[in-house]
Amino acid sequence: MAVYTEVTDDALTAFLADYDIGSVVAFRGIAEGVENSNYSLRTTAGDFILTLYEKRVDPTELPWFLGLMDHLARRGIACPTPVHGRDGAALRRLAGRHAAITTFLPGVWPRRVRIGHCGPVGAALAGLHLAGADYAPTRTNALGPHGWRPLLDRSRDRGDAVQPNLIADLDTALTHILAAWPAELPRGHIHADLFPDNVFFLNDHLSGLIDFYFAATDLLAYDIAVCLNAWCFEPDFSFNVTKSRALLAAYQTVRPLTAAEMAALPVLCQGAAIRFLLTRLYDWLNTPDGAMVTRKDPLEYWRRLRFHLTARDAGAYGL
Amino acid sequence: MAVYTEVTDDALTAFLADYDIGSVVAFRGIAEGVENSNYSLRTTAGDFILTLYEKRVDPTELPWFLGLMDHLARRGIACPTPVHGRDGAALRRLAGRHAAITTFLPGVWPRRVRIGHCGPVGAALAGLHLAGADYAPTRTNALGPHGWRPLLDRSRDRGDAVQPNLIADLDTALTHILAAWPAELPRGHIHADLFPDNVFFLNDHLSGLIDFYFAATDLLAYDIAVCLNAWCFEPDFSFNVTKSRALLAAYQTVRPLTAAEMAALPVLCQGAAIRFLLTRLYDWLNTPDGAMVTRKDPLEYWRRLRFHLTARDAGAYGL
Repeated sequence: MAVYTEVTDDALTAFLADYDIGSVVAFRGIAEGVENSNYSLRTTAGDFILTLYEKRVDPTELPWFLGLMDHLARRGIACPTPVHGRDGAALRRLAGRHAAITTFLPGVWPRRVRIGHCGPVGAALAGLHLAGADYAPTRTNALGPHGWRPLLDRSRDRGDAVQPNLIADLDTALTHILAAWPAELPRGHIHADLFPDNVFFLNDHLSGLIDFYFAATDLLAYDIAVCLNAWCFEPDFSFNVTKSRALLAAYQTVRPLTAAEMAALPVLCQGAAIRFLLTRLYDWLNTPDGAMVTRKDPLEYWRRLRFHLTARDAGAYGL
Repeated sequence: MAVYTEVTDDALTAFLADYDIGSVVAFRGIAEGVENSNYSLRTTAGDFILTLYEKRVDPTELPWFLGLMDHLARRGIACPTPVHGRDGAALRRLAGRHAAITTFLPGVWPRRVRIGHCGPVGAALAGLHLAGADYAPTRTNALGPHGWRPLLDRSRDRGDAVQPNLIADLDTALTHILAAWPAELPRGHIHADLFPDNVFFLNDHLSGLIDFYFAATDLLAYDIAVCLNAWCFEPDFSFNVTKSRALLAAYQTVRPLTAAEMAALPVLCQGAAIRFLLTRLYDWLNTPDGAMVTRKDPLEYWRRLRFHLTARDAGAYGL
């Protein structure tokens, strides 16, 4: 769900006066994205997305995100490009929120992932990693491995209500994962949340990547592990190795993996699974009953994690 | 909030194959409207709205609504026009729901009503009433006066929790309203829900009317009474007679009111206030605490109702 902040037509008109993108033609809230308020904005100059940043986004980090999108767009990545106002600033204020306008990307996100989607996602991810290489500012990944133990602690008291012994099982798994976590792999800027609803396709071609508000500076191969979790499990939680092979092979046509990255794939995938498990678990325990927002079942990631815990090497992923 | 039903890209592609409107370019859920799932759909042929009808809409009534929109659009009313498939049908099936595609209307609904909005709304409402005159099928207004007593009964047990003595006060008001309700005023097809979020403006000109799913066959002047409630109260619930005068004067430039309609304005406005009070009261009592959906305060209409109960004649509305 989205659109937490309402924008009056007067405020919108005044806001647009600071840009060179004409006047408003249509303006509708978008029912996607859970962190911010997003509006589809049409002006006499074309189509845009207006985002109002809500409380879960740290405003001091917004220049980093917008700068990254600007940088990636200049490097040819199909991602939302911040539109700058007449004074040059892309980050502005509207309706008491930080706000930015970005370009509109055509395409539809795949509600059902087919094998044909996975190659383009792998190639686009690698392209993103290369294109980000010369964006100098960095951002610590608050939801990276250092964040997982504190995150687990926030669900410690009530987590076993979701599944018996869940917290102890997660403690064991997390200790194993953190002990095996690789330190020396290639680093760079990662998307960190490249799920199907953040990837648009048009006529079976990938047309854009969106939602960079979890992006951070971290192990590049960890971003692949997020994608393997997000794109390669079937609805019954079986792992589709044909999809992972397609994703990895296409990634490597753009950026070949090092031997160390390949060797680390199982633990990276375990880490990615536990990261989404932990945030979902926290949200599950802290979303009121009956709320209209869809709570995502954390145990879906417990099932993914169990698969990754059985993976002996990169062969489990088709390499 | 909206978008209850998810549409897969495969299903959407198959669905569009039954139309002559090209292939999909973009597809995003719209976070407005509470009854149905609405998507903004761009195809190679242009922009459209895709609506999936959810459970609160009776599917047997959909042909009436779509037929009315077709009829009004042919008469020049700026309203969503149903797009017909190659077989001629506008009402189809998608993702297990009844579904229809309508044309996209430009414009922005006014978040803050100004006097300049009220004249165009009045004129558009009168135009709608005239244009509907030769649409032969009728639809009973389930939320008209015959529905108010049963609706009150559904909140009888718990309504006083919202305000002490509320149910008894509503019983008294409703008895008074129903006894005074006019029977012989001009009838026709009414929108019945022409609130600001259903009226688009572009550069201060009214550009479209949307959401006809409460439309019905009833007293035309009752539709005016709905608008007086919806457009002419200030945020502090004071009644802005300059706005109502503008709305009524513009209405009359298109369709002059009869003397009986003018005389009935106070009771029609009382009825419109109690109608929205009663549906809000029911929703208020039956929405779980903590739900993300915004519950609308029924007592806002108690305050409107009290104003209308003091209105002696049409003079209270500026006539």
